[in-house]
Amino acid sequence: MPRIEGERVIADLKRLAEFGRYKSGVHRPTYSAEDIASRHWLAEQFADAGLDPVIDGIGNVIGRNPRAVRRLLVGSHSETQPHGGWLDGALGVIYGLELARAFAADSALAGLGIDAVAWADEEGHYGNMLGSRSFVEGLDAAEIDAAESREGQQLRQALAEAGLAGRPCERLEPSRYAGYLEAHIEQGDTLDASGLRIGIVEAIIGSWNYWITFTGEQNHAGTTQMSRRKDAGVAMVRLAACINDRFAEIAGPRTVWTIGRLLLDPNAPSIVPGRAEMQVQFRDTDTDILARFERTLLELVHEADRAGPCGIEISPLSKSEPAAMDAEFQVAIEAAAERHAPGLHLRMPSGAGHDAQILSRRMRSAMMFVPSLKGISHHWAEDTKEEDIVLGAQVFADAAAAILRAG
Amino acid sequence: MPRIEGERVIADLKRLAEFGRYKSGVHRPTYSAEDIASRHWLAEQFADAGLDPVIDGIGNVIGRNPRAVRRLLVGSHSETQPHGGWLDGALGVIYGLELARAFAADSALAGLGIDAVAWADEEGHYGNMLGSRSFVEGLDAAEIDAAESREGQQLRQALAEAGLAGRPCERLEPSRYAGYLEAHIEQGDTLDASGLRIGIVEAIIGSWNYWITFTGEQNHAGTTQMSRRKDAGVAMVRLAACINDRFAEIAGPRTVWTIGRLLLDPNAPSIVPGRAEMQVQFRDTDTDILARFERTLLELVHEADRAGPCGIEISPLSKSEPAAMDAEFQVAIEAAAERHAPGLHLRMPSGAGHDAQILSRRMRSAMMFVPSLKGISHHWAEDTKEEDIVLGAQVFADAAAAILRAG
Repeated sequence: MPRIEGERVIADLKRLAEFGRYKSGVHRPTYSAEDIASRHWLAEQFADAGLDPVIDGIGNVIGRNPRAVRRLLVGSHSETQPHGGWLDGALGVIYGLELARAFAADSALAGLGIDAVAWADEEGHYGNMLGSRSFVEGLDAAEIDAAESREGQQLRQALAEAGLAGRPCERLEPSRYAGYLEAHIEQGDTLDASGLRIGIVEAIIGSWNYWITFTGEQNHAGTTQMSRRKDAGVAMVRLAACINDRFAEIAGPRTVWTIGRLLLDPNAPSIVPGRAEMQVQFRDTDTDILARFERTLLELVHEADRAGPCGIEISPLSKSEPAAMDAEFQVAIEAAAERHAPGLHLRMPSGAGHDAQILSRRMRSAMMFVPSLKGISHHWAEDTKEEDIVLGAQVFADAAAAILRAG
Repeated sequence: MPRIEGERVIADLKRLAEFGRYKSGVHRPTYSAEDIASRHWLAEQFADAGLDPVIDGIGNVIGRNPRAVRRLLVGSHSETQPHGGWLDGALGVIYGLELARAFAADSALAGLGIDAVAWADEEGHYGNMLGSRSFVEGLDAAEIDAAESREGQQLRQALAEAGLAGRPCERLEPSRYAGYLEAHIEQGDTLDASGLRIGIVEAIIGSWNYWITFTGEQNHAGTTQMSRRKDAGVAMVRLAACINDRFAEIAGPRTVWTIGRLLLDPNAPSIVPGRAEMQVQFRDTDTDILARFERTLLELVHEADRAGPCGIEISPLSKSEPAAMDAEFQVAIEAAAERHAPGLHLRMPSGAGHDAQILSRRMRSAMMFVPSLKGISHHWAEDTKEEDIVLGAQVFADAAAAILRAG
């Protein structure tokens, strides 16, 4: 079995967290100066591990093993949410690096190898899993032209400022790989609350996202009588409250929904808001439930639009379908977990989206979770015990070796 | 009677609107470069009108008449709301300038004079009617130290960058004035919708303002089950919808209320919001109604806080009490309006707050309105017919002369 060096894993994770450190977490949005610096650092580490590194035109860092005859692609994304956690995707990237080193160092694994990868923008600062989608199926130039960050920065400009303009985008050669493995923190508290140490992902839930705009009439908050107002903010909070109530009535046992983003225009205390916008998202592993939520949402929007006085429009932003993980890979991860942490592992869905759902469209893919303390995620306070980080790397390496040996 | 030069009034208003022009309106926040440049330009115009101009330590531009023995203080504020209208307070400032010129040019008015004024920050970019309050009752150094803009710019720094740090703040000498007159656009559509041309303000409504904060728990929008969430955004939209419904039940015939400002933190689509904030405002000329609204608001906040799961706190931001205008001044404005626009004038409350409510604490004060086309206000599309602007100046000048002659 490949031998993990736990101290090296922890040290690399801590070094990576220096790029954009914020309190005990990290602020490293995609294509920020810190993100680009961290990708160059990762490319150096991939080279030191004997891989041929490349940073491609969308920011993916890929380290290819030039010697192995059977390979797994192993990694995750390396940017963070705003003021996010230090592990999140970084954990899976450093696991990929460590597996590459461990396989290279073990003569019993001759011919078997790891290509390590750090995807770009899984967190959606500019788009929807841009890096892994570019790698698996390519991105339309039109999508790249149109994409911009929530702050209004254009993707083209961000790529140019990052020194990536004009670089080719790497593409998947499916015949090169036995499959794709991704490790990640759980981002929920199922493992932590039960004292479990490894999660084996059965499926990644689908996430459907919508943009709703409210058009009223901006006016003075002191002189416009209530009967004459077309207050886009009133329309928005009324619909948002109604959505929360109705969704609770039709939810499945694991459905989650979120209105995470609200905007009023001009958002001044003495001006009746003339425009408002909000984003609505829901997630489930069951496509029927997702479709039921969509029907309900469209009905509520159309009812509110008809009722007036504000115009309300809805448009879909993105829809990821639920993605099942490879059954044999799950068995391999479970067997490795049982060897190192008997009885302390669990098969579970992933409530969050991951690059593995994109890779799974073209090759066998699987995911492994380590616990998140108190389930905290997408926040600088996110953390995992060091012993769980090291155990996770060893289980992951054993599972990878078993998968590659199984042929 | 003093003779207004209508073309000069229009030309000066158009010149003033060049400072910060935005579409057909103006973006000139207090202490912005455009605002400070416009104040220096106003000081020059005051000097050309024979007044002694000063820009004081809070940004007020005051032009004192060095010759007259009986004087009125006449003006309004010169900064604008974000992307606001070209008239708003600017109209009253240029009327003050024009009255000073018209009185000086009319030998029949010898000994009677106008001090013109452009107050700073009536629009509340940094505080609550900072300029007129500084002039009437002074501002605490502690208030100036603590004040900052909605964008987080400190007032002290803004004053320093505007070149105002260390300048003395001018103070009212009540014995200098027979009273204060302010003209303004109506900011509602009462006059415009009825074909009326002059409004005589009977009272300025009180405006009570509150800040409500919601404290929940930030977390991942895919992995945090609904039962475990403390979503500050859900708490906010639920309370906001409830406030709108309850206020509608207890309102008087002219009460208005507005939730004009909402903030989610971190306001990202895939993060359960951990914090939220909103501002609630209501206005009426009846203090009993204002008190009833406050009791209801506090009850709703405390009920929602007790219900959980988020903590909710409310704090008052500012309270202006309703202010009655001087009865004899109203008669003078009404008589002048009847001379120039027989039957086309109306006594009415002001739904908006104005510097006149501050000045009225220390001296006789009155306000006159001209129509706002379609009632549009605090928006770049705000406008008034040129013939109404010129008529308003003439009515205002006649009223001022009558007031000064009456002794």
